[in-house]
Formats: sequence, structure tokens, C-alpha cells
Amino acid sequence: MNPTINFTPGPSQLYFTVEDHMRTAFREGIPSLSHRTKKFESIYQSTVEGLRALLGIPAGYHLYFTGSATEIWERIIQNLVEEKSFHLVNGAFSKRFFEVSQQLNRKPVKLEAAQGQGFDAHFKAPAGTELIALTHNETSTGVMLPLDFFRTVRTNHPNALLAVDAVSSLPFPEFDFSLLDSVFFSVQKGFGLPAGLGVWLVNDACVAKAEQLLSKGLSIGSYHTIPSLHTHALKYQTPETPNVLGIYLLGKVVEDMNRKGIHAIRHETEYKAAVLYQALSENAAISPLVKDKAFRSKTVIVADTGEHTERITKMLLEKGMQPGDGYGAAKKTQLRFANFPTHAKETFECLADMLVAYKP
Amino acid sequence: MNPTINFTPGPSQLYFTVEDHMRTAFREGIPSLSHRTKKFESIYQSTVEGLRALLGIPAGYHLYFTGSATEIWERIIQNLVEEKSFHLVNGAFSKRFFEVSQQLNRKPVKLEAAQGQGFDAHFKAPAGTELIALTHNETSTGVMLPLDFFRTVRTNHPNALLAVDAVSSLPFPEFDFSLLDSVFFSVQKGFGLPAGLGVWLVNDACVAKAEQLLSKGLSIGSYHTIPSLHTHALKYQTPETPNVLGIYLLGKVVEDMNRKGIHAIRHETEYKAAVLYQALSENAAISPLVKDKAFRSKTVIVADTGEHTERITKMLLEKGMQPGDGYGAAKKTQLRFANFPTHAKETFECLADMLVAYKP
Repeated sequence: MNPTINFTPGPSQLYFTVEDHMRTAFREGIPSLSHRTKKFESIYQSTVEGLRALLGIPAGYHLYFTGSATEIWERIIQNLVEEKSFHLVNGAFSKRFFEVSQQLNRKPVKLEAAQGQGFDAHFKAPAGTELIALTHNETSTGVMLPLDFFRTVRTNHPNALLAVDAVSSLPFPEFDFSLLDSVFFSVQKGFGLPAGLGVWLVNDACVAKAEQLLSKGLSIGSYHTIPSLHTHALKYQTPETPNVLGIYLLGKVVEDMNRKGIHAIRHETEYKAAVLYQALSENAAISPLVKDKAFRSKTVIVADTGEHTERITKMLLEKGMQPGDGYGAAKKTQLRFANFPTHAKETFECLADMLVAYKP
Repeated sequence: MNPTINFTPGPSQLYFTVEDHMRTAFREGIPSLSHRTKKFESIYQSTVEGLRALLGIPAGYHLYFTGSATEIWERIIQNLVEEKSFHLVNGAFSKRFFEVSQQLNRKPVKLEAAQGQGFDAHFKAPAGTELIALTHNETSTGVMLPLDFFRTVRTNHPNALLAVDAVSSLPFPEFDFSLLDSVFFSVQKGFGLPAGLGVWLVNDACVAKAEQLLSKGLSIGSYHTIPSLHTHALKYQTPETPNVLGIYLLGKVVEDMNRKGIHAIRHETEYKAAVLYQALSENAAISPLVKDKAFRSKTVIVADTGEHTERITKMLLEKGMQPGDGYGAAKKTQLRFANFPTHAKETFECLADMLVAYKP
């Protein structure tokens, strides 16, 4: 394996147990296992049960697998929005979710915030909004919505479905799922797995909404509609031949994380984030992109490195650390650091020391 | 790895080099490689170039990656059919393609054949048919369309797009791509790879048709529309975070297959099929499901085993050979045998000997 420690926010550094699990997978015939076998069903089931335990997912919430989180943006709009979705947009990924709704010929409305900024939780979506699309952690800018944000949105919008993109935050956030209708992520970020699998959580209200659109004669897709995914998921099956190996590996990493304990993972994430933000504030040449502490991401920390970007990158690479580039136009003036469960505390301490010691 | 030889038609036995390639992948950091790197682009490019060489894919044909072949059914209807698709249906998978068109609120028409039967190539699709959906190899029944079938269909339908599901036949068939507009497959069958990746070939006529639908204001999807896939593919990129590891492994197996030579692979496939069909005709208790030799699949051979099914299965399993069950309702009366590049000649000879020696 590459000895460089990878801080890019996705695909990220592998969780440190993945290579061993892959060896076991080959020994057990998983890469060629048919998805129409009892053995596959038991893998699906144990992956789901592991995720329920890890994330505290309640009954009445269902878990489906897709090819990517990008696919889930599309499936959410297809299945849950007849016309009106409302999007909080503050970066490239939340913007893309909004655009998907446009491309599917819905009539989405957006509330925009400037780069590096959050939102006032007391916004009011237009009357008749069917779904509010929230990006918990905007990977491009490192803005994370605080958890009490969702309570305010829920209170002010009792009739809209709330869908939360948690791609680059889970397993860190302790969501109160009773406030949310759908949450989704992909496995190549916080879970440290090879890309090629999306995980979509929906509650009964989502199932009912999709069935309602279908009963109106609207098309909500074909194999990956909520009713199709749901019928199969009840039997721990999938409508199509899925990424069996990906589901197996996710189950194994979730097992490892449950063994470590979600509290320890959350605590370490908080600690590592604090260490890094402290370092960013100690060196005058560097500063956190997100000024408002309430919106600072704990899982993707973005540094405004300005004209020092290239030199800092070089310095880190020489020590075997690969920072993530700033996103898009910010490539030459910002650096992004993923803070995922696979990143050790010692590594973050070392990274922080180097950033503090950097001489402009 | 499981020592049983797996004849299930999908997911099938792994190609025998896959485990080695997986080890190399980990050594080279492929499982966490970002899809926005030059290294990924060069993997994508070499996979495409390898497939072009292996299958004889001409210029003017483009190659996109999806999550599954099931997804490609949906993308074909979304991107290439405003209203009228025409489907040749003779089993569970060709039927599913037809149903996808219904679910997307198009107005598909089908021509049906009984189980185990092919079609008269001189059928005439309704006037105004935009796309004819053909399943080259119906995996559920082992019916394979002969290659000259496509020439007749093309001649009789100069204005329709021809889309060919080659999921369980490639890399075996030597398609004349000038007769076809789109061909697609998934990697867990003939290519012997872990499931979770679909490969979609389209020609310029498909690109034009998708753009035409889009310019009419119709929705053709979001991230996996042909225009979006196409723009990215020109740079060897993908719209979403793809199954990077799957694309890498496909490229490596295709390299192995090119080293062996497609002529040798085709010749061996023909030979193994001949050996097995001969065996099926020699034992009075067993017979090929497909009576018309012109339509007998070379890659998924289905045996009518009637009341002997359970005993034959047991006999084969004792010798370390796992036959595929008959599909759906035929589970207790048929067996299916995949004849893919990973299956050795000697294995097929042994399988044939055992079937001939079976005593009712």
C-alpha cells in the first residue's frame, strides 16, 4: 500500500482494516458470490444491523444500496418530489443536488450562502415545498450544519420531507433521526472503503410519498424506485446485481467501528479537529476558511493557505502527508484535510505541528 | 478461494487472474485513488483501449461506465426513447428491459417467443419505432441470437436505433458494430470480475438522439445522461465517483485476455459448448432446452434435467462443480452452465463426461 497518509476528503485513505477484509473475502468466495443466495442475504442483513447499531438508526427507517451518493441525489428527486424541492446551497455539492432537481424537470428553489458560510436556521421554504435538501457537510468548503439546525428546520417545516446529504460527515454526526426523513452517504469517505457504493436511509414517510407519486401515474424510475428497493430490502435483497464485495466490506468495517465504539470515534474526531483548527489559528500565514465556529466542519477542515499553498503542500508531501487540494477555483489558495475515523490522533498531532512550524 | 468450480451464469467464477490483480491494486493504492487524478484517467484510458482491441470496437463508438447493466436498461430508455421502443422478449431479462420502458412511461411494444425459442429475424417493428431492444443472450433460457440476425434487423429497420444487451455473451461474440448503435454488458459474467460495474457502448447516433430529446425540453436524467457521460468520457473521466477498483480490475483482465488473444477465447468457447451439447444429447435423461441449433447459446447452456435435477446437482457438487439453477419457475427442472473464458477446457470435458455417465 502507498505509505503516504492521505488527507484528501474523498476518496479518502482506506480504513486500516480493509486490506485484511479483502483477503478474507477472496478466501470466502465473496467476489463471485451470487446476490440470490442466503449467504448474500445474511451479509446484507449484518451490514444493515451493524449500521443501525453504529449510527443509532431507529425502526421505521429503511436502508437501501445504490451505486453512488450521486445516484441518490437523482433517486430522491425522482421518488420524493413531484414539483417543489428547496435547497440550501453553499458550495459545489449542495449546488449539484439543486441542479439534479432542475435536470429532472422539477421546479427547485434555492437559498444561497457565500463560500465558507452557513445559513440562518430560521429560513422559511416556499409554501408547498415537498422536500428540503440539506447538505450536512459541504465537502467543497468545510461548512458543517450544527445538529440543532435540523430541529429548527423541522419545527418550521412540519410538512416537508427533510433529506440530508451526509456524504462526508458520517459516521461522525449523532443525528436525531426522528427529525429527518432521509439521510445518505457513500462509503469512500468516512468509512474508508473503495468507491462504488451509496447507502440510502429513508423513513416510512418517504416510502408513502413515493407510492403516492406512483399512484398518480408519474414515473419514479425503474429498478431503483423506493417501492422496488423497499420490497427487496425487506428480504435483504437488491433489485439488481449489486456491488456485493462493497456491501461485504462495509459490513466488516462497520463491525470494526462498533468494536471500537461510536463514542470513541466521535470523541477522537472532535479532538483531532480541535488540534488542527488550533494549529490553523497559530500560524499567521494560514487561517480556517470558515470563520463562524458554529459552522466549522469537524470532518473536512479547510485552510485558507493563499500564496503559501504550493509550499505548504510540498512541505507536507516531503513528510509523507498528502493534503487535499482546495475545491475547483480554490485549488491554488486553499487546502482541505479530511478528518475521518481512519486518521490516527498521532497523525493529526504531527500534521498540526508541521503547520504551526511552517515559516512563510 | 472456494475450490468449487462455479458454473452459475452470474455472478460467475472469477477470472483466474483477478486475485493477483487485487493484490497489486492494494500495493498501488488503487482502492483509495481519487477519480480526479491523472492516474485514474490513464487507468480509464487503458481499460477503454484494451476493450476496443479485444472486441474490435470502431471509432465513433464511445464507452461509458455505470453501476450495473440494469442501470443501462434505464439509461437507454431515458436517453434514446421518447415514446416508442420495441422489444424482443423470450425470457426474464428481455422482459425486464421491456418493463423498464413501461415504468419510464414510454409506450413499448413487444414481440414474444416461447421459453427456449428464438425469433424470425424478418419481424417488422411498428412504424415510428425509435429503438429496438435485443437481448443477444437470454441468460434465463440460454437462447442466443445468431450474428446474422442483426444484419437482417438492421436492413429492415434503417431508422431505428438497435440496442443489444450482451450481458452474458461478451467477450465471445464477434459483433459487427456497424450494424448496432448500442451494446452493453456487466463485468461479473464473461469477464469474471466482482459485480458492481456496467459497461455501455454507444455510437454517435445515440449521442445525437439524446441531445435531440434534451433540446426538446425532455428530461433524460441527471448525472448519467449520454451528454454528461460523453463530455466526461472524452477526458477519461466520470460524472460521479465511480467504482475505480472495478474499472482497474476490468482493464487488467482485458489485458490478460488480449495477451491470450480473442481468437483463442472464441475458439475455446465454441469447443467447450460443442463438448457440453454433445454430452446433453448422449444421455437420454437430459436434453438441451433450446431445440433449434441456430439459437443455442454458446455461453449459457441450459439443460432440461426434469426429475433428475436434484440428483444431477448432487452428483456434480460431490465432484466440486456447482451448476447454476434453472431460472425462476424452472429451478427444479433445469440446470444452467456458464461457459465463460475463465472455465478451462479440461473442466468442461470433465463436466461432460459426468453428465454422460449419469445413470437415471
